[in-house]
Amino acid sequence: MHTVARVADHEVAVSPAPVAMVWSEPGTPHEPIAVPGVCLADGELLVEVEFATICGSDVHTASGHRPAPAPLVLGHEQVGRVVAAGGGHVLAVDGEPVILGDRIVWTVTTNCGSCDRCLGGVPQKCRTVAKYGHERLERGWELSGGFATHVQLRAGTGIVRVPARIAAEVAAPAACATATAVAALDAASRIPLDGAVVLVGGAGMIGLASTAMATAAGADVAVVDPDPRRRALARSFGAEWVLDPAAGHPGDQLRALGAIPPLVAIEASGAAASVRAAIESVDVSGVAVLVGSVSPGPAVEIDPERIVRNLITITGVHNYAPRHLQAAIDYLAGVGAAPPFEALVGATFPLADLDAALACAASGEHVRVGVDPRR
Amino acid sequence: MHTVARVADHEVAVSPAPVAMVWSEPGTPHEPIAVPGVCLADGELLVEVEFATICGSDVHTASGHRPAPAPLVLGHEQVGRVVAAGGGHVLAVDGEPVILGDRIVWTVTTNCGSCDRCLGGVPQKCRTVAKYGHERLERGWELSGGFATHVQLRAGTGIVRVPARIAAEVAAPAACATATAVAALDAASRIPLDGAVVLVGGAGMIGLASTAMATAAGADVAVVDPDPRRRALARSFGAEWVLDPAAGHPGDQLRALGAIPPLVAIEASGAAASVRAAIESVDVSGVAVLVGSVSPGPAVEIDPERIVRNLITITGVHNYAPRHLQAAIDYLAGVGAAPPFEALVGATFPLADLDAALACAASGEHVRVGVDPRR
Repeated sequence: MHTVARVADHEVAVSPAPVAMVWSEPGTPHEPIAVPGVCLADGELLVEVEFATICGSDVHTASGHRPAPAPLVLGHEQVGRVVAAGGGHVLAVDGEPVILGDRIVWTVTTNCGSCDRCLGGVPQKCRTVAKYGHERLERGWELSGGFATHVQLRAGTGIVRVPARIAAEVAAPAACATATAVAALDAASRIPLDGAVVLVGGAGMIGLASTAMATAAGADVAVVDPDPRRRALARSFGAEWVLDPAAGHPGDQLRALGAIPPLVAIEASGAAASVRAAIESVDVSGVAVLVGSVSPGPAVEIDPERIVRNLITITGVHNYAPRHLQAAIDYLAGVGAAPPFEALVGATFPLADLDAALACAASGEHVRVGVDPRR
Repeated sequence: MHTVARVADHEVAVSPAPVAMVWSEPGTPHEPIAVPGVCLADGELLVEVEFATICGSDVHTASGHRPAPAPLVLGHEQVGRVVAAGGGHVLAVDGEPVILGDRIVWTVTTNCGSCDRCLGGVPQKCRTVAKYGHERLERGWELSGGFATHVQLRAGTGIVRVPARIAAEVAAPAACATATAVAALDAASRIPLDGAVVLVGGAGMIGLASTAMATAAGADVAVVDPDPRRRALARSFGAEWVLDPAAGHPGDQLRALGAIPPLVAIEASGAAASVRAAIESVDVSGVAVLVGSVSPGPAVEIDPERIVRNLITITGVHNYAPRHLQAAIDYLAGVGAAPPFEALVGATFPLADLDAALACAASGEHVRVGVDPRR
């Protein structure tokens, strides 16, 4: 248990000192650093991390498959409790003040709220964005990632309170994967989901969360994944059909199953063949949402005449806006134990064993691997 | 002047008999047919055509570049006056009854109003759609296209009254090109146009109308066209910049001109390079609207990672919904003489000289060629 004392107007002392795990380069173990004094500016909060999960992008960075500004503190899926505040009121996404002791999740990205992108509906692409778990270590903001005992939240972070009934294993990934799934479905919101067929490419965390939420909205969901264990998992998240891409074009497979053509496709794998299948499978007026293609990959061909004559929309989603995180927590608060979000965390490691946790996550054995800073 | 007399409950006799020009195959002249008696079912109207214009798709069909069910009466851009009605009330798009003598334009497509596509926001793709100027000649619906003295409007047609101050040369193409331009801008409606840069590919009728309407909404519009006469025309429709595609990538040219990156691109030429440029030029959260690709053409490559990370949307528009035709007429009623829509009709031919009119349109000399059934 940490104690927090205010030692000056904006400075707090935490005992024992907060620890963050610093990543430098592929193949080199994380190094813990201690951050004994934390200066909190107006609008900033100090959060004690309850539980974190490892996102695929953490694995990609740690393995060197994704460029990153090192050294840095990784981790952007976590839930924690507010233990100290700078000056001024900090409001949660729901408009209510955040108070000491609140159990919260927060957005991956900060936003200024006043630039053209914030005003234009894409606060995640704010002109002065900072991203938790993605920034080079800097003096005064060492506690910038979730693989730490504490995180220092900057002004302009979207904050959402988490009810006690949501398990930490469920709340932590809401801060990235589950909120991104909400954003993906929101990008297709012109299509009423009730009675529609939705094609989901990839049964990772975003694909499974999309499957559960689209099913809850009345859609019949078809999930495509080459891994039979992932296909079985998709069933438990509500998939009406699970398809092996090796068995043919998902559109053809769906037709053979007697399904009506999909009006929505959520491509959450990033595989080029899956991107093609998403675009090619959606029916007249349909929407193909691309969300998985976050690494460099091959180009994909589209047929402009089909896009035009069939009024097809292809739209990209990256990260999400604060309202999507609120919607993710609201959804998880209402959904109960089925679908089995909590079971997606297949193993949990102490913070000190972060390298082992990342190696376990890289094996692909589990949809999520947990990191517990209190063990 | 034609006279119209009701000879039975649903039948009217027109004297002299209505004439429609029937197209059979490329290289064969149109043949006029007379349709002396017209049976109007409930909800149907008989319209005497005041003026028609030739759309690019009429030229493509007549020249054999576009498959069509022959024989048929071409023409779907026209304005006319209601001269007879079947039974029942017929409501215009504005909800008011249509009465004898109303000067009207009507949608290219009919819609049932109750199928999944009509209810899903794409009435132009109605499950039982009929398209004026596109259907094989059938007994009882010979007057199905605008290259005729009269057109028989079926129930489920979107009808918009046209004020007297809109010239026939301006009203006729509203029924296809201008309304499609409204639909194209509507497809990017999530982007506020005031202060935005809009890239328009192709200075044909849709490109010019998009330019005028986006300019009126406060956008700075850049128009790309290889023809210097079309670029000059684009200037007169409000373009801030006109670009020759031979001078380099439109995005690069805009940067060199000091413009901010486009948030909207309207691709109205159908050229593959222009489709690529539209998709590649739009900034973070931007929308590339494809509307020109209505013929088979080469595939176009997209970079899924850029679509995702930049939250790019690519969306196809084909035809339009009745509300778009209403918006086109409302816009034209308010816009006055500048931009010079009326001057786009560079030549007008009598209906009997339709083959000469189509040859003139195929030359590309004029943006629109008129057909006058009263000469």
